[in-house]
Amino acid sequence: MKKLVVALAQINPTVGDFEGNSEKIVSYIKEARKYGAEVVAFPELAVTGYPPEDLLLKPQFISDNLRALNTVRENATGIVAVVGFVDRRDDIYNAAAVISERRIVDIYHKHYLPNYGPFDEFRYFQAGTRYPVYKIGNVGVGVNICEDIWYPEGPHAVQSLSGAEVIININASPYTVGKGEHRESRLVTRATDCASVIAYLNTVGGQDELVFDGGSIIADERGNIIARGKLFEEDLIVCEINVESVFMHRLQFPLRRQQALSLEEAHIETVHVPRKKTEPKAKPPKPGYRPMGQEEEIYRALVLGVSDYVGKNGFKGTIIGLSGGVDSALVATLAVDALGAKNVTCLFMPSRYTSEESREDSLALCNNLGVKFIEIPIDDVFESYLETLKPHFKGRKRNSTEQNIQARIRGNILMAFSNKFGRMVLTTGNKSEMSVGYATLYGDMAGGFAAIKDVPKTMVYALAEWRNRSGKKPVIPERVLWKEPSAELAPGQKDSDDLPPYEVLDPVLKAYIEEERSFEEILQLECAPQCAKDVIRMIDRSEYKRRQAPPGIKLTGRAFGKDRRFPITNKYRSY
Amino acid sequence: MKKLVVALAQINPTVGDFEGNSEKIVSYIKEARKYGAEVVAFPELAVTGYPPEDLLLKPQFISDNLRALNTVRENATGIVAVVGFVDRRDDIYNAAAVISERRIVDIYHKHYLPNYGPFDEFRYFQAGTRYPVYKIGNVGVGVNICEDIWYPEGPHAVQSLSGAEVIININASPYTVGKGEHRESRLVTRATDCASVIAYLNTVGGQDELVFDGGSIIADERGNIIARGKLFEEDLIVCEINVESVFMHRLQFPLRRQQALSLEEAHIETVHVPRKKTEPKAKPPKPGYRPMGQEEEIYRALVLGVSDYVGKNGFKGTIIGLSGGVDSALVATLAVDALGAKNVTCLFMPSRYTSEESREDSLALCNNLGVKFIEIPIDDVFESYLETLKPHFKGRKRNSTEQNIQARIRGNILMAFSNKFGRMVLTTGNKSEMSVGYATLYGDMAGGFAAIKDVPKTMVYALAEWRNRSGKKPVIPERVLWKEPSAELAPGQKDSDDLPPYEVLDPVLKAYIEEERSFEEILQLECAPQCAKDVIRMIDRSEYKRRQAPPGIKLTGRAFGKDRRFPITNKYRSY
Repeated sequence: MKKLVVALAQINPTVGDFEGNSEKIVSYIKEARKYGAEVVAFPELAVTGYPPEDLLLKPQFISDNLRALNTVRENATGIVAVVGFVDRRDDIYNAAAVISERRIVDIYHKHYLPNYGPFDEFRYFQAGTRYPVYKIGNVGVGVNICEDIWYPEGPHAVQSLSGAEVIININASPYTVGKGEHRESRLVTRATDCASVIAYLNTVGGQDELVFDGGSIIADERGNIIARGKLFEEDLIVCEINVESVFMHRLQFPLRRQQALSLEEAHIETVHVPRKKTEPKAKPPKPGYRPMGQEEEIYRALVLGVSDYVGKNGFKGTIIGLSGGVDSALVATLAVDALGAKNVTCLFMPSRYTSEESREDSLALCNNLGVKFIEIPIDDVFESYLETLKPHFKGRKRNSTEQNIQARIRGNILMAFSNKFGRMVLTTGNKSEMSVGYATLYGDMAGGFAAIKDVPKTMVYALAEWRNRSGKKPVIPERVLWKEPSAELAPGQKDSDDLPPYEVLDPVLKAYIEEERSFEEILQLECAPQCAKDVIRMIDRSEYKRRQAPPGIKLTGRAFGKDRRFPITNKYRSY
Repeated sequence: MKKLVVALAQINPTVGDFEGNSEKIVSYIKEARKYGAEVVAFPELAVTGYPPEDLLLKPQFISDNLRALNTVRENATGIVAVVGFVDRRDDIYNAAAVISERRIVDIYHKHYLPNYGPFDEFRYFQAGTRYPVYKIGNVGVGVNICEDIWYPEGPHAVQSLSGAEVIININASPYTVGKGEHRESRLVTRATDCASVIAYLNTVGGQDELVFDGGSIIADERGNIIARGKLFEEDLIVCEINVESVFMHRLQFPLRRQQALSLEEAHIETVHVPRKKTEPKAKPPKPGYRPMGQEEEIYRALVLGVSDYVGKNGFKGTIIGLSGGVDSALVATLAVDALGAKNVTCLFMPSRYTSEESREDSLALCNNLGVKFIEIPIDDVFESYLETLKPHFKGRKRNSTEQNIQARIRGNILMAFSNKFGRMVLTTGNKSEMSVGYATLYGDMAGGFAAIKDVPKTMVYALAEWRNRSGKKPVIPERVLWKEPSAELAPGQKDSDDLPPYEVLDPVLKAYIEEERSFEEILQLECAPQCAKDVIRMIDRSEYKRRQAPPGIKLTGRAFGKDRRFPITNKYRSY
């Protein structure tokens, strides 16, 4: 039987960590060889980590990346390795090296460069033009990169027509809610369209605002998923591909040359990959895939995002300000799940406006999580600010100024703990607040990472409830889940004094921010015209706050940050 | 004599202000007609303002822009108007409408879309493919947009070969130091290359991080500059172009068809522009151009950037924290020059570490500027923080934590004033500090706009000295210019305790940040290896601070902000 044993090394590289990344690649090469894999693939830009952003504009960075690839090359024997790196020719390319017996046999250049959402690949790379097919033994293999597979007429189509039976597509494809399903159905379509086996390899791990979810899959020529990698974890997927079956299938359903393809122009090339095979010594690992519901998936994405942001930036611990509300309770729980209880410090900083319930709930949460509860009343400091400002604010009414001062005192205390103990402050604002600017700049927005900034408030509750249900015992006190949200910065204050109910607000935010709906379309939602206007005005006017917010994890189709690039100076009003 | 009277309307639009922008365009159309102009041109995306960024992803924004263009169209009579807007076809295009007698005669689509530096045009636009030439009377006119003129084989070359004698190139080209000279020499080269008159129109004004400097110019077919617009101000340049001379010149030096051009593919079209001429009633304004030295040019860019950022965001006044040092003195002076003394509030916030000299110099500065001097000692608040934190910091040495608390108290007080009085805080950090992270997040970095964040410290001194020399009398006290810089956050502290001298530091910063030099190349500068390593390490490690910094004005080839997109999570070390 004509077959090929393919290994997909679903690894978690770190941007710029050439030493760490190349060591990891080499160790996975050895691992894959152990299981008798004939080819082992590594993710898009595995050598540099993804996305390296403007590091790519540094010539020295490109040379250092080539040096790291060379280290990998020197260690690639007994297997064919496909390794994502940055190639340097007349310009730079997002590339995959095909390495066999310490020799770079060929280099593939990515054709389709994404330049939307958080991606800026036109800023850096030239697009490839070649469609090589690699003969590994008697099997034809096409290699291409990420976005290349999203276009029906993409490289996989040309490669399949020119002899490829297996397509290895290496990715750095960030997680968004629901993307897994979409990804899978597209790959199945592509595989059946070109009657080839598609081995889709994704990277895994957090990088600033992005979380790569892994979830590599292999779809056969008939559209069956024959292997799956873990979600949100490193994994090595080893799969024996029945290539005979591709041939049988094509006999029945011959590939049609598509009009859009001009094979003459496509620089068809067949590259023979010489190799020595070594005998396998171990059984490959069982696939570790486990399907997840939406809440679990999001929760796991957040945990991975937090642990990688904190860890890859050289921090061990985090500091979180607990308010008694659900947002900070969720963030503290996420942090404990990501880093362990001993690496999480929780500060409770009551003022004259803080309720006893908030104290009780924060304390109960800390007990449930096994985290130390530190209480620091802020009233003395608040009083000293009021005293200092009194002569200057004479005759002026109290307003949000005094509320912001309280939030900023808390921000300063958190940062003082951060500075003194070298732990990173996690902020606790959710997407609903970030959207309408219901947050204090340099106050509750002060910190290194905004874990839930792309989680709407209604989803915050859903995640908290899921976490309570799914753990050994609930950790977030019940009352936190049903009491009315309040910032507790003024007497009797409730979120609903300033905002519509979150069940009304969140769909408007989704329509305006994620779906770019017009004002007319938003009026179709359950929101009064004045309410819609107010919400849109609040969103538009808070851009200056978001610009100074810490980065956070992208989960939706349009997150704040590199994904949504808005002018601050902006007189546009859609209502 | 064959001639064409061209008017360049060097206007200052605001992003998203469709009403204001279209009104402005209409009023300039009238103005240009008054002087007998046959054509009046408006800048790139004049209708929307530039750059609209992700507003372009809102379908409603595109429709509203078309509606605004329609308003312009209805008012365009007696003159041909060339107006930058966003065209919507199968996709969107960065476009110029050619309007005559209330009719859109043709629409040109920009060919070359910049996607580097602060630009993201591939994110939004499709590239144009047409090369129309407009017959206005008996004169052939080519219209193209910004980047189109930077390529020798660009649209101007094709248009000139197909009958254009005058090229109108509309721009939104941001200021960087020294760009004016470069721009002029390129345009002169292009004009002589294609033996056409090039009328280069630039927009003017501040938009977030960008300042557009105006400085429109008209270069004739022999490379002579025959008209110039003002720098950093709105202007209407009316110029009678001698088109006969183009013909005469081409008789002597025939245009050669370049190999690179394939005219068959270029969709050559001649579009006749019907029009009614009205008689001029007034003499055109005299050209207002005045050459500037580098310091003046930079200073004017900063003044325009500040006044537009503050004004276009709906603020009248600003608040500045004065330290007694040169940075805050320069920013206060800039603010007064931009907004007037009565719109600037200066706060002096001494602590136990503040010298008497700092107080004297800040007071003198305020007197010189005619600004009220408000003094708010921070020691009581500082003491209350220390008291509150004492039980938690027991046994730990004082370190930068306590310094940061002071800076953050000042930040909070400035923000309290901002919240209470509705004025925008201007931060005072310079590029040298922003580069190495010698600033406190949420402390001296707290504010709406960082006016001098792209000005290296050595240039801060040069600007301060230039301002003292050029005004009626010096405003920045002499001592500020020669005393040793200090943050005054600890006893006897000097910048030089933590940083190399600015004369050594600034060239390293330029080499590493602006020029992307390798470590080896940086060692060629006057900087010891350990010093170079320390500086690079500080730059690399401060990305998290810069990500949360307020926007500021881009002046150099690589400013912090949208111009330099660095990962925070980044293990790359170049040394």
